[in-house]
Amino acid sequence: MPQRIFTNARLATMEADGAPYGLIPDGALILDGDRILWCGAQSDLPDSDAPREDLGGRLVTPGLIDCHSHVVFGGNRAKEFELRLQGASYEEVARAGGGIVSTVRATRAADEATLLADALPRVDALIAEGVTSLEIKSGYGLDVETELRMLRVARQIGEMRPITICTSFLGAHAVPEDYKGRTDAYLDEVCLPALRRAHDAGLVDAVDGFCEGIAFSPDQIARVFDVAHALGLPVKLHAEQLSNLGGAALAASHGALSADHIEYLDAAGVQAMAGAGTVAVLLPGAFYTLRETQAPPVDLLRAAGVPIALATDCNPGSSPLASLLLTLNMGCTLFRLTPDEALAGTTRNAARALGLTDRGVLRAGMRADLAIWDVSEPAELAYRIGFNPLYQRISGGCV
Amino acid sequence: MPQRIFTNARLATMEADGAPYGLIPDGALILDGDRILWCGAQSDLPDSDAPREDLGGRLVTPGLIDCHSHVVFGGNRAKEFELRLQGASYEEVARAGGGIVSTVRATRAADEATLLADALPRVDALIAEGVTSLEIKSGYGLDVETELRMLRVARQIGEMRPITICTSFLGAHAVPEDYKGRTDAYLDEVCLPALRRAHDAGLVDAVDGFCEGIAFSPDQIARVFDVAHALGLPVKLHAEQLSNLGGAALAASHGALSADHIEYLDAAGVQAMAGAGTVAVLLPGAFYTLRETQAPPVDLLRAAGVPIALATDCNPGSSPLASLLLTLNMGCTLFRLTPDEALAGTTRNAARALGLTDRGVLRAGMRADLAIWDVSEPAELAYRIGFNPLYQRISGGCV
Ligand SMILES: [Zn+2]
Ligand SMILES: [Zn+2]
Repeated sequence: MPQRIFTNARLATMEADGAPYGLIPDGALILDGDRILWCGAQSDLPDSDAPREDLGGRLVTPGLIDCHSHVVFGGNRAKEFELRLQGASYEEVARAGGGIVSTVRATRAADEATLLADALPRVDALIAEGVTSLEIKSGYGLDVETELRMLRVARQIGEMRPITICTSFLGAHAVPEDYKGRTDAYLDEVCLPALRRAHDAGLVDAVDGFCEGIAFSPDQIARVFDVAHALGLPVKLHAEQLSNLGGAALAASHGALSADHIEYLDAAGVQAMAGAGTVAVLLPGAFYTLRETQAPPVDLLRAAGVPIALATDCNPGSSPLASLLLTLNMGCTLFRLTPDEALAGTTRNAARALGLTDRGVLRAGMRADLAIWDVSEPAELAYRIGFNPLYQRISGGCV
Repeated sequence: MPQRIFTNARLATMEADGAPYGLIPDGALILDGDRILWCGAQSDLPDSDAPREDLGGRLVTPGLIDCHSHVVFGGNRAKEFELRLQGASYEEVARAGGGIVSTVRATRAADEATLLADALPRVDALIAEGVTSLEIKSGYGLDVETELRMLRVARQIGEMRPITICTSFLGAHAVPEDYKGRTDAYLDEVCLPALRRAHDAGLVDAVDGFCEGIAFSPDQIARVFDVAHALGLPVKLHAEQLSNLGGAALAASHGALSADHIEYLDAAGVQAMAGAGTVAVLLPGAFYTLRETQAPPVDLLRAAGVPIALATDCNPGSSPLASLLLTLNMGCTLFRLTPDEALAGTTRNAARALGLTDRGVLRAGMRADLAIWDVSEPAELAYRIGFNPLYQRISGGCV
């Protein structure tokens, strides 16, 4: 690809130190192939013969990054959503076949082509909003074959669409029906063998778990993390969503990339995350859908300097949310993040949560992942609800 | 236009009596020009030579109707959104030029072409979700010329896009700065003359007001409604959003089409609305944005048989929401409507809130306003968040 120059742009570089949003009001960019060659004030633009495009004052941000999603799954849970609103209890929903069990059943029953066809519209919705990197987890198979199938589908999505896919192995998402009461046996017989096989097949970028009374204990999660370490894989954790089991501190002690949800995180957990550089990934879509009332401790996270990211948590049960722009708004409205924090949470800090050091800010040498918006102020991206002002998306230098 | 036949469709007719959603699982439709000629079970489809389209089991609903919006306005309030999240008080925001005053200033300063260019992307976002009828209010001019200009822009939108626009005159939205403390003088000198001129120009389909301590008293609203009646125009009211002034009962006593917001509505107000057949228009986008905690009395409304509608309230301050599908989800998640109620609230009952008797259900003789969706169950429309499964939209028989 030849060089391209964008002029007359407002650049929200998202560099951490300096102006809010790292804003360069009269900016320009030079792309060289899949990289940013230069980025700065237009008055400093180096001489170049490359073709120029005048962006008419439009805003340019790094391509958005959704660092926590479960977009690959079978079926949907609309019926369960409806039953609950008709007044059914959790027990009645379970008896009607609802809950995560129903998604596990539908995912096991779906072949690779079906899982792919079902996931692509969700991914395309994110792409249409300027998302250029997306994390996708396994965790609805809970058997070896289906966990691997989910991860293969995630990899295929990255080949079929102009988007970077990061996979997370989430075998420790729930204990399947046939292992009820035998959680450690599930880890030994299914989860850990599946992780090793998935890793051997090159399907795993990181290892995730769900640390909660209804899922896995800290000791059980530690067993999974130990195998991840032995395989050289980074870890992350669903922690402190519904109660405080000390999962975030456990994750931090394993050098985790991120601890996610963390509504019930306490001051000790915040300090542990700060010490380890673990990113706090906030998931307002689940908070909204589950009508939770305890918001994550944003003030403590800020005070401790813990990097905050925001993600869709797109999944069929607790967050059937396929909009990262709406996630920005929810992060501000429900968790009182500032628009600057929300945008950093879906660019710079989301990259960090995925261990990606080549994106998330506009800077020379970074990957040419950009979103160009029909807005003038970065705060507009978080302010609007259910409106997509994307003008153009560039992924690895390509439209 | 010739006749067209759609076969192999799931029809959510939204007829009130019978199956949930008025569902016909194996349905067919015949369109004749801008009307529905026939609608029913495919096994009963009359003989016809008209061209057939197999919908592959897709869901067909009436075209969606957004019965409460303020999509025409100048500027935006992203800066104010950001200031509040940075901790600014309401006073500080007001001193920084925020609040409705700033939208009035920006709207007065915007010419017709600018207002139109700014509104069209919002309207297009609604159209992309299958909206075929949209109400648009004035109310950010608060002077005669600007109120008329807003309504002319609303009419122009209806000419430029395949959508039915219903206008509401909302001169009694706020008291402008130069009339502070002289509300009745504002009514006499600006609001009522503007209403008469707008009506003379054919720009008014209904008359609206904002009955609240910070806006107009019930007595003042009654003065506006009396003029509306004299002009033969139906009325509606923003009522009981932040407190209970008895606005809904006042509206009902004037035979209002709808009372809107109504978070603080009491049992007496519910009974008054039931008696008058006044539709309850719920606006979850404003409830969400303002982080209100008192939800409208849905159980009382249900028990009294008051028709419930849902709308975006799309406006730059309290509800910068341009998605009616997201409004469906919010109506369920935040107000505990069932998906059936939510869909009726954006079809059958929304039509009634606008006084439109020729749409809102799939039925022979109705206008051919349809939305065809890539889903199989109607509940999926309310279940998903920030995802648009529209397959095709037909407005007055045209794609
Ligand atoms: Zn998750
Ligand atoms: Zn309104």
